[in-house]
Amino acid sequence: MRGRSVAVLGATGVVGREILAILEQRKFPVRSLKALASARSAGKTVRFGGEEIPVEVAGPSSFQGVELVLSSAGSGATRELAAAITASGAVLVDNSSAFRMDAHVPLVVPEVNAEKIADHRGIIANPNCVAIILCVAVAAIHRAVGIERIVVTTYQSASGAGIAAMRELEHQTRAVLAGEAPVPVALPHPIAFNVFSHNSAVGPDGYNGEETKVIQETRKILGSPELRITATCVRVPVMRAHSESINLTLRDALDETRAREILATSAGVEIIDDRKHNTFPMPLAASGKDAVFVGRIRSDPSVPGGRGLNLFVCGDQLRKGAALNAIQIAERLW
Amino acid sequence: MRGRSVAVLGATGVVGREILAILEQRKFPVRSLKALASARSAGKTVRFGGEEIPVEVAGPSSFQGVELVLSSAGSGATRELAAAITASGAVLVDNSSAFRMDAHVPLVVPEVNAEKIADHRGIIANPNCVAIILCVAVAAIHRAVGIERIVVTTYQSASGAGIAAMRELEHQTRAVLAGEAPVPVALPHPIAFNVFSHNSAVGPDGYNGEETKVIQETRKILGSPELRITATCVRVPVMRAHSESINLTLRDALDETRAREILATSAGVEIIDDRKHNTFPMPLAASGKDAVFVGRIRSDPSVPGGRGLNLFVCGDQLRKGAALNAIQIAERLW
Repeated sequence: MRGRSVAVLGATGVVGREILAILEQRKFPVRSLKALASARSAGKTVRFGGEEIPVEVAGPSSFQGVELVLSSAGSGATRELAAAITASGAVLVDNSSAFRMDAHVPLVVPEVNAEKIADHRGIIANPNCVAIILCVAVAAIHRAVGIERIVVTTYQSASGAGIAAMRELEHQTRAVLAGEAPVPVALPHPIAFNVFSHNSAVGPDGYNGEETKVIQETRKILGSPELRITATCVRVPVMRAHSESINLTLRDALDETRAREILATSAGVEIIDDRKHNTFPMPLAASGKDAVFVGRIRSDPSVPGGRGLNLFVCGDQLRKGAALNAIQIAERLW
Repeated sequence: MRGRSVAVLGATGVVGREILAILEQRKFPVRSLKALASARSAGKTVRFGGEEIPVEVAGPSSFQGVELVLSSAGSGATRELAAAITASGAVLVDNSSAFRMDAHVPLVVPEVNAEKIADHRGIIANPNCVAIILCVAVAAIHRAVGIERIVVTTYQSASGAGIAAMRELEHQTRAVLAGEAPVPVALPHPIAFNVFSHNSAVGPDGYNGEETKVIQETRKILGSPELRITATCVRVPVMRAHSESINLTLRDALDETRAREILATSAGVEIIDDRKHNTFPMPLAASGKDAVFVGRIRSDPSVPGGRGLNLFVCGDQLRKGAALNAIQIAERLW
């Protein structure tokens, strides 16, 4: 294979660096690599293929001859550059929320709806990290018996808010242990030894931006626009990997044994469910891993008719929840 | 008032110390105070009323002349001593799970079912901390429109597992920040920068002991033995105060405005629900406080007919979830 001309947009961010690492790890056929970022990152370099690649400031002319753009830039920057990217003939796999709910843009989790990749018109959207992890965990159950309703509550790590938030968790924790008061800068509230409602803006219906993304994107990924789903998104003092407590109301009865069988053969899922040793998915164990870890698999008798199921799920939101998912999409492009 | 002869059983534990502090803060009429604990605490003293009180080793003969025993000893020790306590004529307000589900023992959250106190036969049980915080938050809504189903997911602090777990969170966090591997001792898994399923033993139905307590005790406190409820209990790296994400299915429709009105006049509840500034209940802010803090009050359209409601709740589980609730019961005894 001759390899592709690839540009990584947002190359210096926490997801951008993960994209570079995973391109190497998975031996994605890269013929040439451009590292693009905003003017703030001018003069920086990133490491790829044993070389220091100088970071170029992204602009409309950055994409000549590029075949694939893997973007982890913000929504605003992505919207500004998208026309130039598609006009150059490149395919944009976009981590931002800019185009996710656009009816003409496939929103893809390869384990769930890889067939949508073929419908793209130059842009494929990578879903929200919580939605990706949720959909990998429940898609096979949805196919088998139908999901009527999802109640999801999250435990989201600092890295979901970027490098500055990760540093803040570390520095603030040191400060608190030294007897100093926590000073929030990158995040709106103290993150050291605390928990707070997700830092995205709250809409008029009371749901924050993260929750609205999870609700809308899960419906689109699962191909169930009428799916009943509610979400509560919360930050916890964890460096990396998100956890989700998932309560399902199913259309048909599903006992625990059958649920376990379905999950055992679900693409992208690894079961960790050792009741005897009280060992279940944990963000620390999921960090740096590719799988979505599923455990606490148990029937929920509060739903009549054997149609209730509880799960506890962890996934590395920088990998499967972002960079890995984008590269898995790219791997299926040609 | 001439005051009562009070014994605090388990006086050196994290809840026992809180009981002593709250007796003073609330000016509970104490005529004499005995500090009782197991043989491990022999020789220790505790501070009460400006004095150092020597800790006595608890035994069947410890309760002569005692009128009130506030116990935060374990279930086993409490079971062994309960007959001696009631035979001496004292009333036992018990924090352990030993007698909570006994049909003859009132299980009381004063804001919810204070009327049950009068039914006691010498023992009144103080509920599980998660159940107390949950019931304070939802009781008035249950009275107003009826709760059909509860899905509760917790963020439980280290202090719920005792002083050793609090120290472990601190020491382990220091170790991790120094680049060392976390070494779990008091808790089964690393607690620093991690989240894990509650450390109580998992039963054959897949629910751990904590979840089973929350389910059974909530039904008993709310006086609804058939209430549909499921729970997922999780530890987070927070020192003190528990958080709960609560999803309610109501019998009758309840809009957000009315829900807010009901909560605003609920005994023991303080609303923190500032959507504009993204400020909601947080365990750090709830620590050391008496109220149960309720926020993220929003309708859940995934339940048809306007019958869905989401809440996020925090409460200091050492105070309202344990010591304070016990003393509030004692205040209503005579």
